[in-house]
Amino acid sequence: MAKISDTAINGHFTGKDILSLDQFSPSDIQLLFKHVSDMAKIAKNAKASDLLKGNIVTLIFYEPSSRTFGSFSASVKQLGGQTVEIQNPQSFSSVSKGETLEDTMRVFEAYCDAIVIRHPVQGTAEKAAAACTAVPIINAGDGVGEHPTQALLDLYTIYEKHGRLDNLTGLAAGDILNGRTVHSLIKGLSLYEGNTLYLLSPEQLRLSKTDYDKFSKKGIKLIEISNENEIPKDCDFWYWTRVQKERFTDMQEYESVKNKFIITPKLLAEYGNENLIIMHPLPRVGEIETTIDDDDRAVYLKSQIRNGMYVRMALVALVLGRL
Amino acid sequence: MAKISDTAINGHFTGKDILSLDQFSPSDIQLLFKHVSDMAKIAKNAKASDLLKGNIVTLIFYEPSSRTFGSFSASVKQLGGQTVEIQNPQSFSSVSKGETLEDTMRVFEAYCDAIVIRHPVQGTAEKAAAACTAVPIINAGDGVGEHPTQALLDLYTIYEKHGRLDNLTGLAAGDILNGRTVHSLIKGLSLYEGNTLYLLSPEQLRLSKTDYDKFSKKGIKLIEISNENEIPKDCDFWYWTRVQKERFTDMQEYESVKNKFIITPKLLAEYGNENLIIMHPLPRVGEIETTIDDDDRAVYLKSQIRNGMYVRMALVALVLGRL
Amino acid sequence: MAKISDTAINGHFTGKDILSLDQFSPSDIQLLFKHVSDMAKIAKNAKASDLLKGNIVTLIFYEPSSRTFGSFSASVKQLGGQTVEIQNPQSFSSVSKGETLEDTMRVFEAYCDAIVIRHPVQGTAEKAAAACTAVPIINAGDGVGEHPTQALLDLYTIYEKHGRLDNLTGLAAGDILNGRTVHSLIKGLSLYEGNTLYLLSPEQLRLSKTDYDKFSKKGIKLIEISNENEIPKDCDFWYWTRVQKERFTDMQEYESVKNKFIITPKLLAEYGNENLIIMHPLPRVGEIETTIDDDDRAVYLKSQIRNGMYVRMALVALVLGRL
Repeated sequence: MAKISDTAINGHFTGKDILSLDQFSPSDIQLLFKHVSDMAKIAKNAKASDLLKGNIVTLIFYEPSSRTFGSFSASVKQLGGQTVEIQNPQSFSSVSKGETLEDTMRVFEAYCDAIVIRHPVQGTAEKAAAACTAVPIINAGDGVGEHPTQALLDLYTIYEKHGRLDNLTGLAAGDILNGRTVHSLIKGLSLYEGNTLYLLSPEQLRLSKTDYDKFSKKGIKLIEISNENEIPKDCDFWYWTRVQKERFTDMQEYESVKNKFIITPKLLAEYGNENLIIMHPLPRVGEIETTIDDDDRAVYLKSQIRNGMYVRMALVALVLGRL
Repeated sequence: MAKISDTAINGHFTGKDILSLDQFSPSDIQLLFKHVSDMAKIAKNAKASDLLKGNIVTLIFYEPSSRTFGSFSASVKQLGGQTVEIQNPQSFSSVSKGETLEDTMRVFEAYCDAIVIRHPVQGTAEKAAAACTAVPIINAGDGVGEHPTQALLDLYTIYEKHGRLDNLTGLAAGDILNGRTVHSLIKGLSLYEGNTLYLLSPEQLRLSKTDYDKFSKKGIKLIEISNENEIPKDCDFWYWTRVQKERFTDMQEYESVKNKFIITPKLLAEYGNENLIIMHPLPRVGEIETTIDDDDRAVYLKSQIRNGMYVRMALVALVLGRL
Repeated sequence: MAKISDTAINGHFTGKDILSLDQFSPSDIQLLFKHVSDMAKIAKNAKASDLLKGNIVTLIFYEPSSRTFGSFSASVKQLGGQTVEIQNPQSFSSVSKGETLEDTMRVFEAYCDAIVIRHPVQGTAEKAAAACTAVPIINAGDGVGEHPTQALLDLYTIYEKHGRLDNLTGLAAGDILNGRTVHSLIKGLSLYEGNTLYLLSPEQLRLSKTDYDKFSKKGIKLIEISNENEIPKDCDFWYWTRVQKERFTDMQEYESVKNKFIITPKLLAEYGNENLIIMHPLPRVGEIETTIDDDDRAVYLKSQIRNGMYVRMALVALVLGRL
């Protein structure tokens, strides 16, 4: 399987680097999601899959992320593939001796059929992809940059429930200013017609003017609200996020906003509806009460997590040319 | 395979959490041991086993334990299964950002068919089991709490040699006060009739009065001795343990007791017998002289270690419903 | 497969510890290389290999080495085997509690069919091999001691290109005093007739007199040069190495020599020839300009890396008796 340098998917996943949601058109997403459904069946089936038998995928994580790491590791193994797992390579001798990222990547591409990379610095996945000439790179998150599989699993979770990605009404709450996952969700929903997203956040954590204008131009209707009583009752999904402590230098300011918006049974009873799903990219630290967890509409610890694995199974198998 | 919430095994392992030796009756232990013998045959056979093909087991270790980690990892792979391996998740971003154990567990249960957890805090495995609704939890040691597979491998090692777990005479030596493995051994042997255990320790490291009374009530005969010359010559096993430095605040006191009881060739010649086996939960730091290692009766670096793997193979396969 | 204690290979790899290049005769190397070629075909073939199905190899790395670790991990998995992976065991409880290397090794040999060990202290692999009575040990580098698979992959890379290991002219540059890989290369080439090696280094980093005499006696012709204009134009290979910062106490001295010899397009044009290959054991930190990387003669990020995996595949399969 030769590596393809075109970035747009255009219906062909084999050999492509997966670096950003921007590579996907609605028909690419549709194609992927058809396979994701199949992956769900394979994972639930007791019979083992040999789809990736003989394939080795390197997981190289320059920052710890237990969930994404575990999800990719399980994805490959669910399909009968194997992984080479390298965590915190910066503590490894070659990197600490001054080896460049490019050299490290070219070493690892010799051992495997694809590389999944996680890195704290934006743009690193792209750099890795440029260095590797033999195998495709999958971006598992590079700092404030992209995390395409997270974006795709969020979209799939909405699609799985509602059967479409257009003409939806949703609510995103929490840190709208910095939240990478919310930005990706907006970008993804912008690919489709007729979507409206309410944005509920403390004043300090609203979208920047630049982002608001950029996203609005793409066709999605964004409505900023600042009070829970403005939540529309016909939402198809709620996408709650954590207020990220690490973004604040003033801890008093953090304390004043961190629990401003919490999903409680009362809030859900008042503003939720029967067909709603409640999503969260995790980790959660109090912004959804645990009493909500067992509600059928709460998918953040259930299908949203499983869908992450299914999306990664499909994506890995597609870039390896096995689907 | 649905998860079962009953804690007692009662002859049915499939879907059960394995948290404590207390879940096992003598007939459960008998059933397990029948499978352990089969596992030994599988492991020794050059032909690969596919018993767990298609199964993924997560090993999540919140404290390092190379032996237990390696033993579980090998157990799953000996049977053709796969693992997702997460070590030191507390250094991972989601946990350091304040994610609860319960959320972490619910994330990982989405990726796999069973979770093996090691944690420094007593009661954590039980908490994990309560959080997970889809897959069984196996306790690989939670602080001063339980470590059921260690207890079962110790019992199996005695059973393998002597063909029974009743009417045995044994000696436990070292730190009887704090040693979790000795306490589990006492508990295990208490399930059977006619067992006598001599307890040899420095004065400061005797069983607490509470434990002595509690264990004695269960039917096992406990005889405390303080001098090597009180060791009976008809022991079926010696169970030696390390005096745990980390329990002492006064290093002078530690130095005075740490090497009080050491197995030397002389001690073995004087008090051992032909059918004795010498056990140790490891690590050993001097309390058995290395000249003893090649004695056929010394099993601590031989069958006791291998039995740990066989017991874990059987247990994992049983809770996964593959046996 | 019983473990064999003889150290010389003598045509029989099954059950042997692989500790040093000194165990290999030219005919052993020939036998190995025949299998290495086959391994290359297996790795490139899309069809999965089951050669090591049912085998478990423990990788125990007491110091981090992402390249060697990844190479061994991939080697085993390319052939359908499984690994138990233990990194930084010194941070693990049993070792920190004072367990000896010998005990640790005897624990892990109970779980697997072979152990690959990396350790910062010279002689450790030999100690491990002496402790293990059941499974073969493969040395993946022990400090300034041996790293036999690195030596073998370097020899194979030359052999693959030139079809022979005798009557070669080569150039080794950089830190000739301390470079373990250069010393191994000299040793390896000394097994064959008619080889000449030019040694280009700063004055301070020449071979010690002892080493010069020792190596020269073995039959290889060593010619020390100190200026690039002494490089002969008929070299079959260049073996470039890093000047190791960690060897210097005087940073000013380090700065003065670290980039004394750099491969630039100009140097290559002037002194290289068509059949040359350019090798480097990596990591590289500036001593070969990246513009050289895409030259067909530059093999350090290409076949030299892949050959490392193929050599390890063949070696592991051979000691496990699967070839």
